[in-house]
Amino acid sequence: MPNSENKQNKPLANNHISVDCVVMGFDGEQLKVLLVRRMGEEGGEVFHDMKLPGSLIYMDEDLDEAAARVLNELTGLKNVPLVQFKAFGSRDRTKDPKDIHWLERAMQSKVERIVTIAYLSLVKIDRALNRGLEAYQACWVALEDIGDLAFDHNLIIKEALGYIRQYTDANPAALFDLLPRKFTASQLRTLYELVYGKAVDVRNFHKKIAMMDYVIPLEEKQQGVAHRAARFYRFDKKIYNRMRK
Amino acid sequence: MPNSENKQNKPLANNHISVDCVVMGFDGEQLKVLLVRRMGEEGGEVFHDMKLPGSLIYMDEDLDEAAARVLNELTGLKNVPLVQFKAFGSRDRTKDPKDIHWLERAMQSKVERIVTIAYLSLVKIDRALNRGLEAYQACWVALEDIGDLAFDHNLIIKEALGYIRQYTDANPAALFDLLPRKFTASQLRTLYELVYGKAVDVRNFHKKIAMMDYVIPLEEKQQGVAHRAARFYRFDKKIYNRMRK
Repeated sequence: MPNSENKQNKPLANNHISVDCVVMGFDGEQLKVLLVRRMGEEGGEVFHDMKLPGSLIYMDEDLDEAAARVLNELTGLKNVPLVQFKAFGSRDRTKDPKDIHWLERAMQSKVERIVTIAYLSLVKIDRALNRGLEAYQACWVALEDIGDLAFDHNLIIKEALGYIRQYTDANPAALFDLLPRKFTASQLRTLYELVYGKAVDVRNFHKKIAMMDYVIPLEEKQQGVAHRAARFYRFDKKIYNRMRK
Repeated sequence: MPNSENKQNKPLANNHISVDCVVMGFDGEQLKVLLVRRMGEEGGEVFHDMKLPGSLIYMDEDLDEAAARVLNELTGLKNVPLVQFKAFGSRDRTKDPKDIHWLERAMQSKVERIVTIAYLSLVKIDRALNRGLEAYQACWVALEDIGDLAFDHNLIIKEALGYIRQYTDANPAALFDLLPRKFTASQLRTLYELVYGKAVDVRNFHKKIAMMDYVIPLEEKQQGVAHRAARFYRFDKKIYNRMRK
């Protein structure tokens, strides 16, 4: 900067900073993202759509703190592990006047560019997470049912999926955060198919599970199902960690 | 935000956004980071130290564009692949008045918090990269020789290393970006040791190389060396890509 002191006298980006949280769950059949409802007014017409839980950060808080606060304020979720995965700062992300007007009204301040820091969380959807979501106008939406979201939130979700793929290649344990404590081989396979976006051969997959020493077959089987009851498995974190050393 | 409209009337973070580039090279013996010199004045005393190539972004540019521009302006480097790896936004990163005063003088504007988006690039240090670096007061510094840098740049470099480890676990090819086109087994092993921060057994490593079908032994050997001349290898990207499908 002694060597590049704003040479061209261009205006510096005095941006607002926001955080957005991609909270992902798996209900045994579908990958779902936690979204919040948005109501706005544009050209005299009321509109309803959805967005990721996110908001501008306060002057006195760090990025990680802001992500935890905002997620809690908008969805009621607490103590959810959040990992920062990417900053989004394209000028185009605020090109829709609808988004800017909505935000300026909500924030009661002028808004120009916003750089958002995106966070990801993989959670067990069967935990008590749903409790209270309604009160916050938050809800789980299956990936394939997600329509046009506010700002560039569709892009953020797409990149979150790419990040999950890369991350679980290096850390296979991450996928088990999405599964219930007891899960069937079929659930695990479906999850692989959804995350990697391609079909997995059933027989090969059973071999693959057999080779994962940290996936432990249980005596317990499904109950009250129409088809042949499937065995349950559990993920053993201790064995996994020992193998990774 | 309809549900959390800045409830507590706290001041929003109207931050400056910067980009910082961790450009890493390997000279066959050491991992090196490209740093730029900084001269400032604090309490009437002139000081000299170093920092990552980085600067505030302009209002009209995207993050990736800004990273490429700033790296070029401060080091002369062009067409270097830059991957965003993390945003740093702690309040503490601008706690040293020295840093703030220096930046305000350079930028001729008031500076409060700065959120920086960090980029990483792994480059072949033996390319013509050094040409002109001197003119920019930029230089390669071995990881172990890096002293106290400006802002939180020591932390950013540390986290860049963590990112490289995770990334190369999933994409082993990345490490070869750091090696010259022809490299010895010993260079590859040293690189592994530096990146993963632990000793690698020589004999096991030769077995490991033999199993990497994309590392091709050449007929050519080192010349003019005091010790027994080592064979050269090259990385075959086509074979690698075929195997990864």
